[in-house]
Amino acid sequence: MIVEELLSRERAVVEVALDRVLPSAQAWPDRLHQAMVYAVKAGGKRVRPILARLACATTGHDPDAITEAACGLELIHTYSLVHDDLPALDDDVLRRGRPTVHVQFDEATAILVGDALLTEGLLVLACRPFGDEWAPRRARATALVAEAVSSRGMVGGQMEDLEATGQVRGSDRDPEQRLQRIHRHKTGCLLQASVELGAVLAGVTGAEQERFARFGERLGLAFQVADDVLDATASAAELGKSPGKDAAAGKLTYVTLYGLDSARTLLAELEEQMVALAEDLEGADGPLAGLARYVARRRS
Amino acid sequence: MIVEELLSRERAVVEVALDRVLPSAQAWPDRLHQAMVYAVKAGGKRVRPILARLACATTGHDPDAITEAACGLELIHTYSLVHDDLPALDDDVLRRGRPTVHVQFDEATAILVGDALLTEGLLVLACRPFGDEWAPRRARATALVAEAVSSRGMVGGQMEDLEATGQVRGSDRDPEQRLQRIHRHKTGCLLQASVELGAVLAGVTGAEQERFARFGERLGLAFQVADDVLDATASAAELGKSPGKDAAAGKLTYVTLYGLDSARTLLAELEEQMVALAEDLEGADGPLAGLARYVARRRS
Repeated sequence: MIVEELLSRERAVVEVALDRVLPSAQAWPDRLHQAMVYAVKAGGKRVRPILARLACATTGHDPDAITEAACGLELIHTYSLVHDDLPALDDDVLRRGRPTVHVQFDEATAILVGDALLTEGLLVLACRPFGDEWAPRRARATALVAEAVSSRGMVGGQMEDLEATGQVRGSDRDPEQRLQRIHRHKTGCLLQASVELGAVLAGVTGAEQERFARFGERLGLAFQVADDVLDATASAAELGKSPGKDAAAGKLTYVTLYGLDSARTLLAELEEQMVALAEDLEGADGPLAGLARYVARRRS
Repeated sequence: MIVEELLSRERAVVEVALDRVLPSAQAWPDRLHQAMVYAVKAGGKRVRPILARLACATTGHDPDAITEAACGLELIHTYSLVHDDLPALDDDVLRRGRPTVHVQFDEATAILVGDALLTEGLLVLACRPFGDEWAPRRARATALVAEAVSSRGMVGGQMEDLEATGQVRGSDRDPEQRLQRIHRHKTGCLLQASVELGAVLAGVTGAEQERFARFGERLGLAFQVADDVLDATASAAELGKSPGKDAAAGKLTYVTLYGLDSARTLLAELEEQMVALAEDLEGADGPLAGLARYVARRRS
């Protein structure tokens, strides 16, 4: 199966499960729930839950058993976007071609939407799959993802990014070290945790979990470098958001620090590494390798 | 032992454990961690972890086994204060006699501090007490607290509160129903969950957990009504924050809706109910009853 077909089938499975884990937009507090649904159902690529499902399938376990848990990742990812877009942070008005939550609703609602999505995402991970026999894996899974998005992970990367643009006063730091920290944490930690989640819920531990983690780590870096390249090269229609913002905002990205050619070379290297790591896990030409290629070459 | 002595001893135990669960202010990302520590170590009363410890002790189990887990409640409570204080929400500049986080640091940092504290609080609950034998209780505890602070709980109450002041556009609603929703959810849900957490980590389930929940529910309501009374009657020095803000901001509180006398009468009734429920759980004159009296009569 070509990877686009696999991804579109996977995405359809995730969309249905997302509707099951999201609170109803009609239930109290309706305005908040409407805004949560607006944020989540904006048509993302659902890469994180798909990664978890593919990693789970690689171990020989049924990925359908963990789809709802995997949706917790998407709620958490969406929270991070809603808060990043706020006026006090990146001040973005457009996301996936639509007004951001604080523009469509208001700033207070957007703050609470992020808070509620983060809570709901970790709640989903603490509860699903249902059943006491899953409890030890659920506890590990919740801790794994919470650690990945903590101050030592995703939120720390966001803080470093704000310091890099001078939006908040921070410690002086070498730009290369700073960029590495931003790349590693801001997007990388949650993507790595997504791969690990699928493995952990399938019962994988120790050295085998470590192999999934290494694949996820490379994938996270590739994802971020591809993002930097896209911001510098794609059109607004392709991106669904304003391009060229990084350079204009003085953002520290792989492209602004090393240039476009270096970024493309790095992406090709990462693709090779990811495919090798994926082969180790699933044999030749498996779905993880397909997804790795897709991430390294994505155009939107 | 008089209740003030019990509370001060309990508080000292919680402070030490808080230092163990908080990230070091020296570790990367330092600015974020400094702000997290600033927010948490501002000298709160630590009512929520103390409630969990007392509920646990009531069942005959060692409360010291769950102190770190109970600290997760305090991190989550602090997150809610930091976000409530933001300019887009309550716009408070003073909290416990000190500048709020967004004043002392900046708005972006305050948003991330709240995000990181919520994450850390749920992470602590997913991890502690350590050991696979605790995993089923930990999974239940994490889900219990996450549900309490979700859009259907604490965050929903905050949303309703913002709608009540007209800060955000919301559905028309009867003021009495609105007030009940605010009181039940904004403070009540997490206080009830704090009592239940101590019981759940001690292995309590079913009808017995329900009795703890009912005590916690009354306590949450009493806490909020006492807060409304204090805002209308206490001085800034007693409160550590600006008093009289509720009336000035057109906030819907028990005092602004029913008047000070009715609020005091309700508090006395709640105290009686709480003491009766506490006797059921711990016999006459136990620590839960003492805490209930303290909450209903508090002056700051």
